[in-house]
Amino acid sequence: MPPRLTLRVDLGPKQSIGPGKMRLLDAVADTGSISSAGRKLGMSYRRAWMLIDDLNSSFRRKVVSTTLGGKEGGGAKLTPFGEELVKRYRAIEENAAKATKTHVAFLARAMRTDSEAGTAKRTRLSR
Amino acid sequence: MPPRLTLRVDLGPKQSIGPGKMRLLDAVADTGSISSAGRKLGMSYRRAWMLIDDLNSSFRRKVVSTTLGGKEGGGAKLTPFGEELVKRYRAIEENAAKATKTHVAFLARAMRTDSEAGTAKRTRLSR
Repeated sequence: MPPRLTLRVDLGPKQSIGPGKMRLLDAVADTGSISSAGRKLGMSYRRAWMLIDDLNSSFRRKVVSTTLGGKEGGGAKLTPFGEELVKRYRAIEENAAKATKTHVAFLARAMRTDSEAGTAKRTRLSR
Repeated sequence: MPPRLTLRVDLGPKQSIGPGKMRLLDAVADTGSISSAGRKLGMSYRRAWMLIDDLNSSFRRKVVSTTLGGKEGGGAKLTPFGEELVKRYRAIEENAAKATKTHVAFLARAMRTDSEAGTAKRTRLSR
């Protein structure tokens, strides 16, 4: 497993975006519904709905728009702003990964590898 | 509150560093002991000890060194590698913040502000 950054952007005291919400938005775009998106990620409908409601109320513009019932049941899709939000978050991930490459590589090299783990116990802190 | 990034560096399947461990290392450097550092952060001794043991076994070199008992009780301090680890993490935070400034500012501008929150309920998803 190559080292990687995980990013959360805290925008306000209760407003943040991170990998979980972004995966959910990707899944909504893929499946066209909140319940299918939740199912895809092993998340309850309630949890998926709450996260999306959270996103929709965090920003001035809606992130996900929904259509009601009808024959095929309700649908959901990203708004143009929702698409931009996902793109911006992915750009943040990429720019951050590029800008921190050297330091992250240093940490990866300093890491104990699996083959060294056998000796790990002996050098651990004694309690 | 200005928008900010929170970063976690995943180095292996069970090896990661993030803001919590870094704050703990800062507190160890400040207080000279694991128990005082834990107390400072409202963390049990056991939890502080486990996080540091985790760090010490994640890398080839120790991050924190401890000295046993004596009149003043045991002490703990960052090793030179521990100091470098903290510096590298802070550099990762700074470089990532700089490299993502434009996108983060866009998200901050798109955010609903407190004064707009009164209308938030009306535009939320209907259940």
